[in-house]
Amino acid sequence: MADSSLRDAFIDELRDTYDAERQILKALPKLVKKASNKQLKAAFSAHLDETKGQVDRLEKAFKLLGEKAKSKPCKGMAGILKEGKDVMGEDVDKATMDACLIASAQRVEHYEIAAYGTLIAWGKCLGESKVVKLLEETLKQEDGADKKLTGLAEDGINEASMTAGAVA
Amino acid sequence: MADSSLRDAFIDELRDTYDAERQILKALPKLVKKASNKQLKAAFSAHLDETKGQVDRLEKAFKLLGEKAKSKPCKGMAGILKEGKDVMGEDVDKATMDACLIASAQRVEHYEIAAYGTLIAWGKCLGESKVVKLLEETLKQEDGADKKLTGLAEDGINEASMTAGAVA
Repeated sequence: MADSSLRDAFIDELRDTYDAERQILKALPKLVKKASNKQLKAAFSAHLDETKGQVDRLEKAFKLLGEKAKSKPCKGMAGILKEGKDVMGEDVDKATMDACLIASAQRVEHYEIAAYGTLIAWGKCLGESKVVKLLEETLKQEDGADKKLTGLAEDGINEASMTAGAVA
Repeated sequence: MADSSLRDAFIDELRDTYDAERQILKALPKLVKKASNKQLKAAFSAHLDETKGQVDRLEKAFKLLGEKAKSKPCKGMAGILKEGKDVMGEDVDKATMDACLIASAQRVEHYEIAAYGTLIAWGKCLGESKVVKLLEETLKQEDGADKKLTGLAEDGINEASMTAGAVA
């Protein structure tokens, strides 16, 4: 495989995503703790386990590419998580907090969906099929996590926050 | 419509998104200028026009809700755009820069897809059907912009950056 500047961009993008995943690993336990709805707590907890696997998969990808697993500070994820931290500090009832936690987490998921989408397209272009397979596995999980959160919001959490507001 | 804390969260989320859109309005002309591929330049330019309409729609939404159109600093978008600015400063060939601009812009689009998805779900819950209609119009445009960028990347920009790298 001839070196190309797309390859350099690909490695750079992998490092950005590796950093993003590690930031998420630190943030998710706070979401698990803050969520009140049991199913939401369980969903965040399950996604924490998935995220550990996603970090491992990125490390495997670096290895397959003959590169050291290195982080590049991901400013996008840092901004999204800063916003999420502010949300967690707000004084709202538990049900509305759950709805807000979902909103924050879906911003995280969508950042990752965009990042893995780019990585997969570039990886295919570079003929890195083994790496692409790993990335596709992760993208499927991110899509699944996003849809799971939409389901929980629509299945009662949004409605519950309406009732909580009326009672307060 | 009884007040609820979900309604407060909804207004807050609208303010966050209003700020995000206005940050994007400032950033898009830089993307138009930086892009080399003509179709990509045109796509960014078209999305700049769409974004102006999206800001107008948010102002209409505030009016329908009897609220003043106010911004709340959107740290998530600020982080994503900071990252995009760094990308534009990198020393890579034009074709790879185009591929990287697409990657940055798709992160922006996905943030918005998540934000409007939340707003629509909450707006429905609150019975704000006129506002929801406006938000759905914008979400459709964001989805379209994201797919357009994927198409341009896969239709030649990623390949071109491979060739550029091989020649360099």
